[in-house]
Amino acid sequence: MAKIDVQMVEDIAVGAALLGTGGGGDPYVGKLMAIQALQKNGPVELMEVDEVPDDALVVPAAMMGAPTVLVEKIPSGKEIFKAFDSLQNYLGKEIFAVIPIEAGGLNSMIPITVAAEKKLPLVDVDGMGRAFPELQMVTFHLYGVSATPMVLADEKGNSLLLNTINNFWTENLARNATVVMGGSVMIAIYPMYGRDLKKAGIRNIVSYSAKIGRAIREARKNGDDPIEALLKATGGYTLFKGKISDVQRRTTGGFVRGEAHIDGIDQYKGELMTIDFQNENLIARRNGKVVATVPDLICTVDAHTALPITTEGLRYGQRVFILGIPCDKKWRSEKGIETVGPRYFGYDVDYVPVEELNKG
Amino acid sequence: MAKIDVQMVEDIAVGAALLGTGGGGDPYVGKLMAIQALQKNGPVELMEVDEVPDDALVVPAAMMGAPTVLVEKIPSGKEIFKAFDSLQNYLGKEIFAVIPIEAGGLNSMIPITVAAEKKLPLVDVDGMGRAFPELQMVTFHLYGVSATPMVLADEKGNSLLLNTINNFWTENLARNATVVMGGSVMIAIYPMYGRDLKKAGIRNIVSYSAKIGRAIREARKNGDDPIEALLKATGGYTLFKGKISDVQRRTTGGFVRGEAHIDGIDQYKGELMTIDFQNENLIARRNGKVVATVPDLICTVDAHTALPITTEGLRYGQRVFILGIPCDKKWRSEKGIETVGPRYFGYDVDYVPVEELNKG
Repeated sequence: MAKIDVQMVEDIAVGAALLGTGGGGDPYVGKLMAIQALQKNGPVELMEVDEVPDDALVVPAAMMGAPTVLVEKIPSGKEIFKAFDSLQNYLGKEIFAVIPIEAGGLNSMIPITVAAEKKLPLVDVDGMGRAFPELQMVTFHLYGVSATPMVLADEKGNSLLLNTINNFWTENLARNATVVMGGSVMIAIYPMYGRDLKKAGIRNIVSYSAKIGRAIREARKNGDDPIEALLKATGGYTLFKGKISDVQRRTTGGFVRGEAHIDGIDQYKGELMTIDFQNENLIARRNGKVVATVPDLICTVDAHTALPITTEGLRYGQRVFILGIPCDKKWRSEKGIETVGPRYFGYDVDYVPVEELNKG
Repeated sequence: MAKIDVQMVEDIAVGAALLGTGGGGDPYVGKLMAIQALQKNGPVELMEVDEVPDDALVVPAAMMGAPTVLVEKIPSGKEIFKAFDSLQNYLGKEIFAVIPIEAGGLNSMIPITVAAEKKLPLVDVDGMGRAFPELQMVTFHLYGVSATPMVLADEKGNSLLLNTINNFWTENLARNATVVMGGSVMIAIYPMYGRDLKKAGIRNIVSYSAKIGRAIREARKNGDDPIEALLKATGGYTLFKGKISDVQRRTTGGFVRGEAHIDGIDQYKGELMTIDFQNENLIARRNGKVVATVPDLICTVDAHTALPITTEGLRYGQRVFILGIPCDKKWRSEKGIETVGPRYFGYDVDYVPVEELNKG
């Protein structure tokens, strides 16, 4: 039975921010909250999925909204507990464990904070194995789990409990409420039983995040190439190396949308990469040719430190590697591609696995 | 102890539509629902406010949204019970009685339907004594009663439970959700105890609506002038008589907003009246001079039948009387005028009682 301590939180924050593919929130505020909660309450138990009883209730805790907003609109620290407690009261049953909904910088930290404060285990699982912008974009949805009852809570003290007929209505109503509530809120969502989690979750994502963070940290400490270590830890591909020449961002409809242009350096000199994003990176083109799309992971990391850079952290002149990492195989099913493939996001492009696009 | 039967429903529907001052919904669909519920369950008890125990829970049931939408988006008939039951479950206490929130054509009928189906009494009280467009525009608000917990339910099966820090946040969040849910929803709101209702409610509004409807009906039956009967029953003033020459309406942000132009006839020949509305009539000007404003009632009725015409029922060429009726004195307090006076709606006009504007 693993324990999450402060060192592991640091590693998870880095690894999960990488898997966040530009979204999932910046780890900074979330990490401070999680470390504070651990210092107060001691380490959190990291539980295997198979240790969760079939009839035990698990609940993901997360931030919802545009990460650009959260840079300036700091959580009060209480709203996530309000969301969590309200959902538990409504369900009328004790919550057995907390899980992350996605592997983002912030959304990996919030469940650790809740687990620490509530003295509950964190299960080594999530619903994406990466980050995605919309609520129905979880493997739970592929297996018919309802996103509701769901609670949203803002830092002012307002809260909202939703019951919907399907997960698209949940996304629609919750997204609008998030915008009205100021652009970001804390949520407790997709309450489910152990038996559903075992079928529908993506396993070992917390320990995988920790492994990625540790690989980068140890390579830097030992003077090894952290990019090499990262590629080895993830089985990823180098899609590009370059210098950010332009970033366009607009925060609309509760999302940050935009694109980044990167001018090649070293072996990519004279070449151009563009990446489109909606909170998360959606599609990467090198010299106009698609080299990776959702649901595969498109990750931007600092060329020297290998530390991940979120979409709101992109700056002119940064030297970066763009990496492609294969997504979990649950996303490569027909319903998976329908839910999060490039056509869902409006691109007239068929999904081709990143391994095939970059072989040879 | 009075009983509401089918005849009384017909009278209430007419009287409440008049007091709806153009808003509060068209009585047609609501009346059919209420009559059907009475035919199935028998008459509804109409209870005096003072008969409600201090610690008994009462809940207003209503439609929220743009009445223009409801003309085409018919309720399923089930969503109001879902809203009502969800709120009761959340509160964990039996609801003792139902009340109307406002005196509109539809919003006078929905609580009767709920009372009949749930076999609960209807209390002879509301929170406006007329209709207003926003959720905080109730006398309950003037006395510090919280609009939440509140439930919204749509005809598709989605529902939403709100808890907010104040009634303006309730309006803001509920209005946006209403728009996302298609422009109109059913709500259970302002749950309160008998002791608050006694202080904060506007008394005898249901029997007053019935009295108005009966006066019009009997005058028409007896060949008397129904406009005379209406003025006598309400203590109102004739502000204008004319022919509708233009109506502009736009359904935006969950409201129908617009203005009506009326060309004078008979004693008003050569004169012009304009009425601005936001669901309800807000301000009436005769030849550019203000002759009535919120919170006083500005009512449009058919010149021959004296039957009220809602803002969405206004048509070119209709011959109408425009009547001004003094509002309840609770609205004439400082906080009342701040909440629903002409300045709240953006007019650079001080509130002057309709009696003073039309004396002599």
